[in-house]
Amino acid sequence: MSKPFSIGVDLGGTNLRVAVVSREGQIVDKITVSSTGNIIESLVGAIGKLFSGEINGIGLAVAGLTDGKKILNAPNLPILREIDFVRILQERFNTPVYIGNDASLAALGESVSGAGKDLNTFVMLTLGTGIGGGVVYNRKLLSIAGELGHIVVEPGGRLCGCGGKGCLEAYASARAMSTVAIEAIELKRETMMVKDADCAITPADIYKYANLGDPLAIEIFKTAGFYLGIGIANYINIFGPDAVILMGGLIGAWDIFIKKAIKTATASAFKELYAKTVIIPSTLGGDAGIIGAAELTYC
Amino acid sequence: MSKPFSIGVDLGGTNLRVAVVSREGQIVDKITVSSTGNIIESLVGAIGKLFSGEINGIGLAVAGLTDGKKILNAPNLPILREIDFVRILQERFNTPVYIGNDASLAALGESVSGAGKDLNTFVMLTLGTGIGGGVVYNRKLLSIAGELGHIVVEPGGRLCGCGGKGCLEAYASARAMSTVAIEAIELKRETMMVKDADCAITPADIYKYANLGDPLAIEIFKTAGFYLGIGIANYINIFGPDAVILMGGLIGAWDIFIKKAIKTATASAFKELYAKTVIIPSTLGGDAGIIGAAELTYC
Repeated sequence: MSKPFSIGVDLGGTNLRVAVVSREGQIVDKITVSSTGNIIESLVGAIGKLFSGEINGIGLAVAGLTDGKKILNAPNLPILREIDFVRILQERFNTPVYIGNDASLAALGESVSGAGKDLNTFVMLTLGTGIGGGVVYNRKLLSIAGELGHIVVEPGGRLCGCGGKGCLEAYASARAMSTVAIEAIELKRETMMVKDADCAITPADIYKYANLGDPLAIEIFKTAGFYLGIGIANYINIFGPDAVILMGGLIGAWDIFIKKAIKTATASAFKELYAKTVIIPSTLGGDAGIIGAAELTYC
Repeated sequence: MSKPFSIGVDLGGTNLRVAVVSREGQIVDKITVSSTGNIIESLVGAIGKLFSGEINGIGLAVAGLTDGKKILNAPNLPILREIDFVRILQERFNTPVYIGNDASLAALGESVSGAGKDLNTFVMLTLGTGIGGGVVYNRKLLSIAGELGHIVVEPGGRLCGCGGKGCLEAYASARAMSTVAIEAIELKRETMMVKDADCAITPADIYKYANLGDPLAIEIFKTAGFYLGIGIANYINIFGPDAVILMGGLIGAWDIFIKKAIKTATASAFKELYAKTVIIPSTLGGDAGIIGAAELTYC
């Protein structure tokens, strides 16, 4: 018989987040530890503080490609690939341990207790530094590769972090927008935007200038929105989902970025399919991946 | 208890094909009738000849969008949309009747007794006048929209029959290649290719001239192959399948068309995912859809 709580871990980012999650997908306790230093010791310590006889198992969300047991590729934190988290934690805590892609698990989380709670089938896109995603089909997470940010939306286009060219991520992610802004400033395009002390510019900055009427800032969001719309239309035509759920800081720019994406998707997707799809924001935000990871122990 | 045979019907094309299919996916009897005249009467007549107490049910494959019960959109034969095949056949033969998209069902057929027989997860693309497809996931057909020919591979590109712009079908289908050839001839591009009496030119003609070294004919196949490769890479990154199975007359041009597609997909898909995927031809060909339709009665 399954126990009423699980531990969900988010291995992404500069911090590790470890949480106790209820069967209903509510976070009841949470610890954050630094991912610098000995990751596995920090992780074992944090889980140890939260572990009890009520825990059904441990689920790990990682920003990378996994096969359900091992990490195959973790571009943002390559060291993760060298550690066999599943085996180590299984032996240490004598409990089942699962691992999955953080964006896919965010989709699962939204299905358990978020924006996808009442939906059968949806596609989730996480719009952050990169773009990831997951597909819930008939209330179950599809354990597909789910590299939804790496469909080509512009053949031969901008180089993507994955080594490919013209991926959705190379056009509609935070990193892509910042890169385009920097390039334009260096090319002396007319704009109010200025680089900060690190010679960087964030999407939040671009958004601020877009709201001040800066044409370059507006153009950056609209171009990104156009390609996001192409990607959304593709996923609507492939899956015919009830919804496309969007997550990540960039959806703060809904009125300019997402609105353009919706306009493009409307023109590009099959009418019969678009008509039954809603495009909505995530309700769990940054907790979706942890909740999804914890849910793995019940799947 | 299920009965050992089913009836599969292919409602596409200028002929209706009705077959008795064994539980193992072998066609044991087949009738072809014209789709001109009263379609439903022809169909009822043909099924009547094959029906017996050994029949588990009837499955219909249609070149269009269905919701499992009704035809939502049948661009090639709009009259199909007006007929409630499922209800009529159910009442007439007092047996369960199912309906699905022909390309999706071709994927199911390949899974039952074709190239996908020993595969867990694969994407099938049917390369014909248009482009369709289906996805088999963990040995089951995903009942998704599956409009796999209508992902955008060239934003703002060639107008597609679906009303969208730049779809895979607008670049890599037989219709697309013929259109490109005609346009080039009309623009007086240098080529050995000539239009036939109907001012048309088929992919078989283009292939013949490609083999004679005609640069335009070669270019047409390579361009189509490039876009097909982009599409294949997208499906590999989304699904991480064991295989991409290709079907349809166009795969006869494997050495130039599909070879270019494979080269493009290799460069574009995630290496870890591409490495575990094979790109192979269908083994059932034109019978795949009927076999898949029949299989619906066992799903």
